[in-house]
Amino acid sequence: MLIIPFIFVIAVLALGVAAFFVRQIKSADKGSVKMQEVAAAISEGAHAFVKRQYTTIAIIAIIVAAIIFVVFTLVGKPDQAWHTAASFILGAFLSALSGIIGMFTSVRTNLVSAAAAEKNPARSLVVALRGGAVSGLTIIALSLIGISVIFTLFGANPEETPFLIVGFGFGASFIALFAQLGGGIYTKAADVGADLVGKFEAGIPEDDPRNPAVIADLVGDNVGDCAGRGADLFESTSAENIGAMILGVALFPVFGVSGILFPLIIGALGLIATVIGIFSVTEKDAQHEDPMHALNKGYYITAIVSAIFFYFAVMYLLNNIWFFYAGLVGLALSIVFLNITLYYTDHRFRPVQEIAKASTGGPAMNIISGMNVAFETTALASISIGLALIISYRLGEMSGVQSGGLYGTAIATMGMLAPCAYILAMDTFGPIVDNAGGIVEMSESSENAQRNVAKLDSAGNTTKALTKGYAVGSAALSAFLLFSAYMTEVSTLTGHVFSVVNMAKVDVFVGGLLGAMLVFLFASFAIRGVSLTAQYVIEEVRRQFKEKKILEGIDKPDYARCVDITTRGALKNMILPGLLAVLFPICIGILLKYEAMAAFLMVGTITGLLMALVLNNGGGAWDNVKKFIESGAYGGKGTEAHKAAIVGDTVGDPFKDTAGPSLHVLVKLLATTSLVLAALYI
Amino acid sequence: MLIIPFIFVIAVLALGVAAFFVRQIKSADKGSVKMQEVAAAISEGAHAFVKRQYTTIAIIAIIVAAIIFVVFTLVGKPDQAWHTAASFILGAFLSALSGIIGMFTSVRTNLVSAAAAEKNPARSLVVALRGGAVSGLTIIALSLIGISVIFTLFGANPEETPFLIVGFGFGASFIALFAQLGGGIYTKAADVGADLVGKFEAGIPEDDPRNPAVIADLVGDNVGDCAGRGADLFESTSAENIGAMILGVALFPVFGVSGILFPLIIGALGLIATVIGIFSVTEKDAQHEDPMHALNKGYYITAIVSAIFFYFAVMYLLNNIWFFYAGLVGLALSIVFLNITLYYTDHRFRPVQEIAKASTGGPAMNIISGMNVAFETTALASISIGLALIISYRLGEMSGVQSGGLYGTAIATMGMLAPCAYILAMDTFGPIVDNAGGIVEMSESSENAQRNVAKLDSAGNTTKALTKGYAVGSAALSAFLLFSAYMTEVSTLTGHVFSVVNMAKVDVFVGGLLGAMLVFLFASFAIRGVSLTAQYVIEEVRRQFKEKKILEGIDKPDYARCVDITTRGALKNMILPGLLAVLFPICIGILLKYEAMAAFLMVGTITGLLMALVLNNGGGAWDNVKKFIESGAYGGKGTEAHKAAIVGDTVGDPFKDTAGPSLHVLVKLLATTSLVLAALYI
Repeated sequence: MLIIPFIFVIAVLALGVAAFFVRQIKSADKGSVKMQEVAAAISEGAHAFVKRQYTTIAIIAIIVAAIIFVVFTLVGKPDQAWHTAASFILGAFLSALSGIIGMFTSVRTNLVSAAAAEKNPARSLVVALRGGAVSGLTIIALSLIGISVIFTLFGANPEETPFLIVGFGFGASFIALFAQLGGGIYTKAADVGADLVGKFEAGIPEDDPRNPAVIADLVGDNVGDCAGRGADLFESTSAENIGAMILGVALFPVFGVSGILFPLIIGALGLIATVIGIFSVTEKDAQHEDPMHALNKGYYITAIVSAIFFYFAVMYLLNNIWFFYAGLVGLALSIVFLNITLYYTDHRFRPVQEIAKASTGGPAMNIISGMNVAFETTALASISIGLALIISYRLGEMSGVQSGGLYGTAIATMGMLAPCAYILAMDTFGPIVDNAGGIVEMSESSENAQRNVAKLDSAGNTTKALTKGYAVGSAALSAFLLFSAYMTEVSTLTGHVFSVVNMAKVDVFVGGLLGAMLVFLFASFAIRGVSLTAQYVIEEVRRQFKEKKILEGIDKPDYARCVDITTRGALKNMILPGLLAVLFPICIGILLKYEAMAAFLMVGTITGLLMALVLNNGGGAWDNVKKFIESGAYGGKGTEAHKAAIVGDTVGDPFKDTAGPSLHVLVKLLATTSLVLAALYI
Repeated sequence: MLIIPFIFVIAVLALGVAAFFVRQIKSADKGSVKMQEVAAAISEGAHAFVKRQYTTIAIIAIIVAAIIFVVFTLVGKPDQAWHTAASFILGAFLSALSGIIGMFTSVRTNLVSAAAAEKNPARSLVVALRGGAVSGLTIIALSLIGISVIFTLFGANPEETPFLIVGFGFGASFIALFAQLGGGIYTKAADVGADLVGKFEAGIPEDDPRNPAVIADLVGDNVGDCAGRGADLFESTSAENIGAMILGVALFPVFGVSGILFPLIIGALGLIATVIGIFSVTEKDAQHEDPMHALNKGYYITAIVSAIFFYFAVMYLLNNIWFFYAGLVGLALSIVFLNITLYYTDHRFRPVQEIAKASTGGPAMNIISGMNVAFETTALASISIGLALIISYRLGEMSGVQSGGLYGTAIATMGMLAPCAYILAMDTFGPIVDNAGGIVEMSESSENAQRNVAKLDSAGNTTKALTKGYAVGSAALSAFLLFSAYMTEVSTLTGHVFSVVNMAKVDVFVGGLLGAMLVFLFASFAIRGVSLTAQYVIEEVRRQFKEKKILEGIDKPDYARCVDITTRGALKNMILPGLLAVLFPICIGILLKYEAMAAFLMVGTITGLLMALVLNNGGGAWDNVKKFIESGAYGGKGTEAHKAAIVGDTVGDPFKDTAGPSLHVLVKLLATTSLVLAALYI
């Protein structure tokens, strides 16, 4: 059995590359003293938040682990009790760890990227991408190591293990939920609070050092986009691996252990492809006018190398060309999804231009037009997902293998997630250059440096939007896999084959209705969390402006107090939506039983993914409408159209950075909770 | 067989009462010459729109009827071909007729209500309610007559008839879709256009006679709220009757023809209850400070009388007390739904107050807070629907009748729809008093008259919001019935029992995904229709202000041109969403077949109803936030909070009066299309 050692070695090597990047960053030029001061303030704030956030989460996680242990012991499965609880803790721990490592790297990289902006902007780009790669590589490597460890420890009988390690996925998604919610509320409350009082009431520019909430805003980019998204994609990849492994169990007679471990192998090969992709992006590429040129080059190289590896892996381990085609469908879907997101959020295309035009009619027209674009984004995305599912299923059927259709969709998901580490690197690139921009601005660097980072920042906005689209697409593809895993789990528990979710039964229909409802209610709570927390920030900034002579440049603002208030607000307001997401499905499952729970899961997933698209892309479009107008369209800054666009951007903030990404985590949390707790729903 | 004649007699009597009300209104005092001029302009505009709208719709309807005929002939069912096509035409015709009668009455009643406002405001209320009752009684009576006619003509074998008359339901929902879309786009485009240029750019008050779009705005209330909602509820009650009758067929061995005709009997008894309820509202009741007092009295009397009739009908025809209890569940759900809607849209409760408070932070905070309230509204509503479905199902099971559970949910739906004619009267009351307000304002009547109608107008806003909630609730309850009707239809066609919709199959899951997606895309198109049409209105009003001396009071505005432009815009922009709603499901059904179509229908219905709640209640809350602030909260008119509230109100307009109600029609159109065209999906 050489597969597990192989995965281990690759994962450790990937961690080595990440460590190499960290050393590179640590030894690089750190710019002026002023820059270092700003970076230190951001770093301090981020550390403070993460420390308190993870303390809170750890307490909740330990309670949940205890509950899992008790439940399984009560239903008479002491072995599974401690295995599941231990896996839960390990998943939670590794998820938290990968988020934290990514964040700590990015609060160091931002300074290095800012320092290079003046003389060598190409270096700014490359270092930011490598800083992002630390996140990407660490997250995927830790996920692979975690699953391999459990497989090795508990895997006396490989066929049973996948069911045990669902606890790992549950732990990962549990952390992801709170990390994304807490981070998402933090980042947008600080952003909205800083903007509303700073820009509108006091009339000072964005990132102005006189704004007491400016550091909190920059901290927010790290805790929301880095730590939050990191935990999110950690559990995405873990959940997908687990779903595919459970399916591999069904195919054990055909493929043996290779079928079960196949997703881990693809993950490991994806790591190698990502390392190649990252190293392929040189400072020479980064000298191109458009920063996306260099980033895209790396992405396409990663994708092509992944495809080649995929071919060999399929032929060597599964020996069936049809599954390779299914993998290509997944890779193609990821490219299609990136382009759909680009179409709806880039100012070169109709949607953003249409909203910008509507903005000349005032804020209401901006919002109306934005909402209709947001709703529209679901169309192409759903049709692509539908096609990818059906095609990969049919390809799988053509393999001639029993249950091959389902395995085809599993392979497609692996194809989509193969270049995941690179996508994550691009994603983390976003907050790093955003922060670099803030540091350059606050340290009063040259106009040239400001212009250079502004260009990177704009590319970062695009990559952040793309990743969110990618995350939704991969969740949709893997959702179907997780349903079948749940049904297999229930079949094992009841001893009867559970293969039918009949929506024509009243309880099942009600289950579906409530699943869809949870999505709306959860989004409502998440958005409200931002409103409430922003309210505290607004009051604090107003108070500081009133009591001190900050605007006149005499007194210094108290950044730390704003950071502290935002931290406390975000942590307080993440609890309610978090508990709703965990407890409500459990209640419904216990009351309406497993078939209704399946409908809850399925309809909840469909609605959740569509709403995530609406919120992410709507928010992304509003953001770029503002930037488009600021670049001179419809009269540029200061016009009525610009004011309207600012309203849209502010509305879009909690949509795209809090509710949307959290919904996406919710969907996977639903799947992992039902897998772990299926025993309660019988 | 005395049931059909009984239903006929009651329906004709109800039409007689409606005619009596019309005479009363015609012979009443019509106020000053100036009032009559304004009313004439509104009436003219409404006639012009309706004439052109129904000409367009008629053409599309004839094409669809021809397609139905051809399809059924091709699949070798010539009998069913002409029966279905003829039913379709009859349903479409009666739906259009009831919408038109209601609208013509309301454009006469508005004047009478306005004329009484000065001296006898209680009379204003009573006459407006009776004007509304003309709509309510006509709609329900025509629906009963139509279904009875088909049953008599084609019903050689009563067991087969319900399947034939699904064409009637399809015709009704087809008209409802276009009536609601066209009317909804018209009313909100005129409203938004009039407000944006009039209030903001020119700074003149609402309903100011100098605004060229003011007549178009008042026309809009009639064509959207009266004709649109009328057609909508015509098809609601028709579709529900058909669903219940199809189910009655399954129970034929138990109840005989009584089981099939039971829904029609309940409809007829509901008409009697409504007449009693309407007559119970006297001018004395209407003298109460709060106009809702009198309206609610009538409602509760109607509900109680309905319940008593229900008891006798159940005991006499079905002879099983459990079904009476199921009917009470439906009645209770209607009361619960009214109160949920009230909670979310009335300024006395938390949601509106919360949004109002957030408005002090500017338009963005108003929108964010409004969206989170809108999302939240789905929670209580879904839980109530879920409970009502499960409880009525269990009650039906206790009856001991085979398939009794499903029949229990059918009876609950009947219970909910029994007082439907009264609810419709309250609904149409809304646009009548809204128009009366406009007439009073434009004819420069006394302050006293203005104050009196303003109070009625505010009550009318509440009743309109309540009806929308009621419509969604009844659609949700009847949806489940229509699913089972669809499955019965497919079973008949294939000759195999089709009782399982398995979401764990890939095609079926994709069907569900695309069903949910259709909801978002359709909402997007409907909202965009409003944006585009409003754009024409805005340009026209700006042009008139620029070219003529209207604001100085020298030139008169050209109302007719605005009416004409809005008409053309609305008709043009209703085509795309209308065709999407009809054609997309058919394509999916043909491609993915009947089981996937069932999932499409089910998930589409769930998502559609939740989105309708979000859009209706969000819009209603924003509307009342504005009114709340205008009444003096947070500084009242002219403050920043007020400006923010106006933005929210404008955003809410197309949500609550175009997209929300149209979605609700879409959901039922999906059900009737799939019933009629099931043969294509085999």
